[in-house]
Parts: sequence; structure tokens; C-alpha cells
Amino acid sequence: MTDASKVLSFFEAYSFRKKQMLQEEGKRCSAYFFVIKGCLRLYFTDANGVEQTLQFALENWWMTDLDAFRSEKHSGYSIQALEPTEVLSISHKNYELLLRGNLLMEEYFRRVYERAYAASLLRIQLISRMPKQEFYENFESKYPDFLQRIPQKVMASFLGFTPEYLSELRNKRKAKKS
Amino acid sequence: MTDASKVLSFFEAYSFRKKQMLQEEGKRCSAYFFVIKGCLRLYFTDANGVEQTLQFALENWWMTDLDAFRSEKHSGYSIQALEPTEVLSISHKNYELLLRGNLLMEEYFRRVYERAYAASLLRIQLISRMPKQEFYENFESKYPDFLQRIPQKVMASFLGFTPEYLSELRNKRKAKKS
Repeated sequence: MTDASKVLSFFEAYSFRKKQMLQEEGKRCSAYFFVIKGCLRLYFTDANGVEQTLQFALENWWMTDLDAFRSEKHSGYSIQALEPTEVLSISHKNYELLLRGNLLMEEYFRRVYERAYAASLLRIQLISRMPKQEFYENFESKYPDFLQRIPQKVMASFLGFTPEYLSELRNKRKAKKS
Repeated sequence: MTDASKVLSFFEAYSFRKKQMLQEEGKRCSAYFFVIKGCLRLYFTDANGVEQTLQFALENWWMTDLDAFRSEKHSGYSIQALEPTEVLSISHKNYELLLRGNLLMEEYFRRVYERAYAASLLRIQLISRMPKQEFYENFESKYPDFLQRIPQKVMASFLGFTPEYLSELRNKRKAKKS
């Protein structure tokens, strides 16, 4: 086997329809997803029954409830496909086996987490300190294509806005640009 | 050399007095700190001149502006000792050398970042969605000793409170407990 096919043998490939669930809140978190094509979101349902989106994963990103996956606990989050999505999925057992004694994979995941952790610190700064409008503008300038792909309602929950406020903000920004 | 002394040869040991600066905002970020004893905080000064604390590091934790350290850029944050603090410090060049081809160190840092990233996701959920009082209670129940060590003003900025609001909250909690 080549190195690539050896690595791939630890994964299973799945396709999901738009809106299909990959992980449900309260169920055991047993898979880690790598997005080949499409887009996933991670969210939870708050005390008022409102879905709150915390994270997105586009092509070449990883997604799971990492805390629950590491300890094989039940997850407090749901993962859903926002578009028709193809993923590679790895179980906790295979993740451990894939990494064990494998310098290349250890280095790869160290870099994945290093980058993800650095980005999450920036996000903590943005959401905790930045006025909402500025946060949106920052996000828009950093990920313009991304904004086109995400339903407005989901985007609003990610930003902590009402859909009406986001719509107003978008119209103002469009008027400013034209 | 033993393995431990080989690893240690990549680091330099420093001691800092209480309130001494380890990294200043706007300066090149060239060191990554491992806390042997004491406590560090990472903060920035906002547009109103107020210091906003984003992170703490106690014994056995790592601290740097990870994004700036990885790319050897100038840092947008300051790092300060909150107590007399002893650290091991590693330069970017030595960090790369220490990891290169070293399975044990790659695995160690993969686990450090995996845990830190999982924790930061939880933190994003807490700060973005949780009422402030609930966030404080959650923090207090998780890190009771920690709260004793951190000056009230710094803690308030970490939680996004005014010092007066935090003081009021603490008194209420104390009255409830006794």
C-alpha cells in the first residue's frame, strides 16, 4: 500500500444531503469529520429553543465536538450539513491507531491544532471585545466567499445577531459599496 | 545527555517579579513561555485605554501570542507576571528544532494544543452565549483556587465586568454560601 492509501484505510467516506445531521446533541460523539467537499456547522440549542451556531467547517477542515470525541463522551452539540457534503470520517479508536508512533501524522495534527487554537484565541478577542458591526465587517473582509454560502439565519446565529439586524447591516453595506 | 536534559537545552530559564512584563504589545513575539511556578496573563489595551485580559497561564501551562510566534510577527498582546513567576522560554528557532523529527515532542504538543483548542471552543460558547453571572459561577466552580490568586481588577476585565459589578457579585455569592 502507498502511504496515502494506508492513511485512508483508517477512514470511511460518507455523503450527506443538505440539512442532514452528522451528529446529534446528547448522543455519543464517536466520529471526527474531514470535509472533502461542502460545508458543516456545529451548533447547540439554547434554553429558549434557539439554535446557536459556534463553528463552520469548509473544505479541508476538521470538525467534531473535540472535548467529547477525546473522552468518548456524549456531545453537547449537533453537526449538520449546510450543503451537499462529502466527508471522511474517523472513529476515536482509529484516530488513536493512526497517530500511534506516526511522526508524520503527529506533526500534521499538531499543526492543525496549533493553527486552530491560534485562530480561536483571535475569535475570543473578537467576540468578547468588538462591537457587533465591526465583528461583521472583519468577518466579511476575511471570508467574503464564505458569507455567500451560508444561509442568513445561520450566519446571524453565529454572529449573535437577529436575522433582521443582519439583513439591515448587509443592506447598509451594499448601499455603501455601490 | 539524558532525554530530559537534551530537551531542556532548547530552553532558557527566567524569573520575573510580580507585574514584570514578559512581552510588550507591538514588539516582535520571539518567545514561548512554559510556567514552572507562578502565573501569567495575556492582555491588550483597547481603544479606551483599558487593559483587557484574554488568558491566564498557571503552572505547567504554555503562553505566547501563538499567531505572532508562529509567523514571527509583532504581537498585538502583552504578557505580564501576576505573581513572582519562573518560566522556561523557547525561541521560535529552537521550537522548530526541538520538534523536527521528534515523535515524542510532536505528540506532546499535539496533545497540548488538542486540549487547549477543545477548551477554547467551550470558552467561546460560554462567553458568547452565557449570561455574565452564570459565566462567573461556572468559572468559580471550575477554578476556585485560581480566583483567590487573581487580582479582582484583572479578573473583572477577563470576565468583561466592571470591578464594581464583580465585587457586588462576589459579596452576593458569599452571603448566599454562609
